Amino acid sequence: MLVSVFRKAHFNAAHRLNNPAWPEERNREVFGLCNSPNFHGHNYDLEVKVVGEIDPETGMVLDLGWLADLIKREVEDRFDHKNLNLDVAEFRDLNPTAENIASVIWRILRAHLPERYGLGVRLYETPRNFVEIG
Amino acid sequence: MLVSVFRKAHFNAAHRLNNPAWPEERNREVFGLCNSPNFHGHNYDLEVKVVGEIDPETGMVLDLGWLADLIKREVEDRFDHKNLNLDVAEFRDLNPTAENIASVIWRILRAHLPERYGLGVRLYETPRNFVEIG
Amino acid sequence: MLVSVFRKAHFNAAHRLNNPAWPEERNREVFGLCNSPNFHGHNYDLEVKVVGEIDPETGMVLDLGWLADLIKREVEDRFDHKNLNLDVAEFRDLNPTAENIASVIWRILRAHLPERYGLGVRLYETPRNFVEIG
Amino acid sequence: MLVSVFRKAHFNAAHRLNNPAWPEERNREVFGLCNSPNFHGHNYDLEVKVVGEIDPETGMVLDLGWLADLIKREVEDRFDHKNLNLDVAEFRDLNPTAENIASVIWRILRAHLPERYGLGVRLYETPRNFVEIG
Amino acid sequence: MLVSVFRKAHFNAAHRLNNPAWPEERNREVFGLCNSPNFHGHNYDLEVKVVGEIDPETGMVLDLGWLADLIKREVEDRFDHKNLNLDVAEFRDLNPTAENIASVIWRILRAHLPERYGLGVRLYETPRNFVEIG
Amino acid sequence: MLVSVFRKAHFNAAHRLNNPAWPEERNREVFGLCNSPNFHGHNYDLEVKVVGEIDPETGMVLDLGWLADLIKREVEDRFDHKNLNLDVAEFRDLNPTAENIASVIWRILRAHLPERYGLGVRLYETPRNFVEIG
Repeated sequence: MLVSVFRKAHFNAAHRLNNPAWPEERNREVFGLCNSPNFHGHNYDLEVKVVGEIDPETGMVLDLGWLADLIKREVEDRFDHKNLNLDVAEFRDLNPTAENIASVIWRILRAHLPERYGLGVRLYETPRNFVEIG
Repeated sequence: MLVSVFRKAHFNAAHRLNNPAWPEERNREVFGLCNSPNFHGHNYDLEVKVVGEIDPETGMVLDLGWLADLIKREVEDRFDHKNLNLDVAEFRDLNPTAENIASVIWRILRAHLPERYGLGVRLYETPRNFVEIG
Repeated sequence: MLVSVFRKAHFNAAHRLNNPAWPEERNREVFGLCNSPNFHGHNYDLEVKVVGEIDPETGMVLDLGWLADLIKREVEDRFDHKNLNLDVAEFRDLNPTAENIASVIWRILRAHLPERYGLGVRLYETPRNFVEIG
Repeated sequence: MLVSVFRKAHFNAAHRLNNPAWPEERNREVFGLCNSPNFHGHNYDLEVKVVGEIDPETGMVLDLGWLADLIKREVEDRFDHKNLNLDVAEFRDLNPTAENIASVIWRILRAHLPERYGLGVRLYETPRNFVEIG
Repeated sequence: MLVSVFRKAHFNAAHRLNNPAWPEERNREVFGLCNSPNFHGHNYDLEVKVVGEIDPETGMVLDLGWLADLIKREVEDRFDHKNLNLDVAEFRDLNPTAENIASVIWRILRAHLPERYGLGVRLYETPRNFVEIG
Repeated sequence: MLVSVFRKAHFNAAHRLNNPAWPEERNREVFGLCNSPNFHGHNYDLEVKVVGEIDPETGMVLDLGWLADLIKREVEDRFDHKNLNLDVAEFRDLNPTAENIASVIWRILRAHLPERYGLGVRLYETPRNFVEIG
C-alpha cells in the first residue's frame, strides 16, 4: 500500500519575470505587472510530497524530521528573504516563474531523496495561483 | 516534465436540488434540506488545473491571465450572483448538484482550451463538501 | 479578568438585496449584482462571542455546548438552507444585508443570553466581506 | 466520466509514538517529542474521497449524507476525544503514526463502501504534516 | 497612535477536563467527551498581541524576534507535546480548559513584557472554539 | 447600534528593512534577514474596517463597492507588484515595516473616508505576523 506524506514549508522572496532576449515591450505585454522593474515579492508556500511504503518498524514512510531538515537546508535557507533573480544561482539564467521555481525545487530535492521514494512538489505563489509537479 | 498550474475563482449562487420526475416525498428524502423549495445558496470556490509542459521562452505552462479571463467570461460572469436553476441555461434540465456543476464547467473550459493541455476542475460547494474531475 | 469565548457556526442561504420603496433602476444601481431578481446565495460563517468571567468551579465562562445548542436552534435551524427573503420572518420587511442579518442574529441571541454576559457577533458573507457587532 | 466527491470530518485525540520492541533511547531518538511518555494530542482533519460515476437520476456520485453518517459512526464516534493508544482497539499493537491512522481508516471505510467506488483518505495531523492513501 | 502587533505560535498537547471535587457523574455531565479518562488532545493555535507605539528608529512596536523567542521559551517549550494535566505545573490544580490555558499564558507573558505594552492572547482549541483575553 | 464592516484586499510587494542612519552591522542585528540587501517580498493581506450605523434605507453601513474601489485606487494600484522602498513615495524616508505600512494605509484611507465613520486597518505580512491600527 503506497502512502504519501506531505510536509509544508515556506519562504518569502522577491522576484521579477523577464526574458532578456525580448524587447521591453514584449516583456511588459507577456508578464504584465510581474515585469515591474524593481521587483515585487511573495510569501511562497511549499508542499513536498514523498511517496513510499510504511516501514513496519517505525510506522512511518520516512523520517519527517529528516525531510524537514532537508527542505530547510536546501530550499528555505537558500531562498528565504532573498531576491530570486539576483541572489539564487539557479535563476541567474532562468526566469523565476512559479513553474520554474517548482521545477528547480523538485530537482534539488530529487537529488537528495533515496530513489525508492516518489516525489511531488506543490508551490503556492499566492493562495489563488499555484503549480504542481509529480 | 509535466507541470500543473492552478487558478482559483469563485461565484456566489442560489440553487435547489430536485428531480422533477420524482414525487415530492422522494425528492425530500433523497435531497433533504437541499430540496428546500425557495432555494438556498453557496459561495462556490473553483480550482481550475491545466497540465502541460513549461514553454522555455516564457517559463510558463500557459498565460494565467488568459486562463483567468476565460474563467471569468465563461464561468464567473454567467454563474455569479445567479440562481443556477432559473438563470443558467445548462441547468434548465440538469440538477445543479456539485457533481453536475463541476461537469458543466469542465466541458465549458475544455471546449476553449487547446487540445495539448490536460484539464482538471475542483469545485467546493462548502469547505467540507467538494468534488473533482480530471 | 474578562475572557471572551467564541463559537463558530454556519448556514447556507439564498438572498436578494432590494428596497421595495425604490424604483428598479435605483435598486440595480445601489445593490448591483446583489439585486439579481431570482436570488443568489452564500455560505454564511458566524462567530458568536460571549464575554464574562471564568467560573472557578468549571474553569469555563459558560457551557459552550449550551451556546452551540442555542445557536443551532435559534439561528442555524431557522436560516440554514433557506431563502432569507421568503422563508425567514425577520426579513419579510427588512433587507437581508450582512449588516441586518448580523443585527437580527445579535438580537435573537441577546434575548436568550443571561444579562451578565457581553455578546458579540461576526458574520462572514464571503471570506472578503464581513461585519461585526458588539 | 469519473468524478471524485470529498467529505471532510475531524476528531481530537491523544496519542504517543512508541515501538515497545525498542529500548527507550532509540524510541526517543526516532520519535523525538512524539515519544513524550504522557501523550500529547492533535485536532485530526480527515478528507475522504469517493470516486465513481454520476448517477443520472440523482446527479450525485453517492449520497453524501450516507457517507457522512458512515464516517461519523465508524471513525469519529470511535476516535474522537479518545486516547488512540489506550482506547482504540486497532492501535493496541500498532503505532498510531499519521500513516498508520490513515491506513486503519482506509481499511475501515473500504469494508463498508460498495466495490464499484474508488476510495482515498487524506489525514492532517497538523496543518503542516499530513498523509494520503489512494 | 497605538498599534497592535500579533505573533502566532502553536503547540500540540493532551488534556482532560475534570473537577476532582465533583463526583464522576457530574464531571461527565458538565464536561461531556472532554472528561474522557485517558485524555484526548488538540493542536492549540496561539495569537499573542502586543500593543504600543511605533519606535521611530526601528519602525517597529517591539522586536518580533524577541517576542517569538519569549513565546517559544515560556510557552511552546513547556506546553508542546505535553500532557497539560500531568506534565505542566500550572495545571496540577487547575482545570486545563481553553479559558484557563489562555489565562495562564497571559500571566506568564505579562510577567516578561515591559509594563508600557498592552497584552492580549487568543487561543484556538479547535478552529470552531477559541477564547480571548485582553 | 454600531456595526463594523470589513473588506479584504491584498498586494504583492518587495521590501527591505533598513535604517540609513545606522551602521550596516546594527541594521543586520536589528532587522536580521529582513535587512537582506537585494530585497525580499510578501503577499500582504489587508483588512479594512469601517465602523458606523446602518442606513435604514439601504441596510448597509456604507457602499462596500465604493470602499473596494477606494482601496483599489489608493492602495492596491499604488502598492501591488511594487518595490515599496523604491517605487512608493511614502517609503522614500520611512522604513517599510508592517507597522509603518499599516500606518501609511490608515492615513491614506482616513483622508478619503467621511468623518462620521470609524476606521481600522489590519495588515498581514505573513499568516503569522500581522499588525492592527484602530
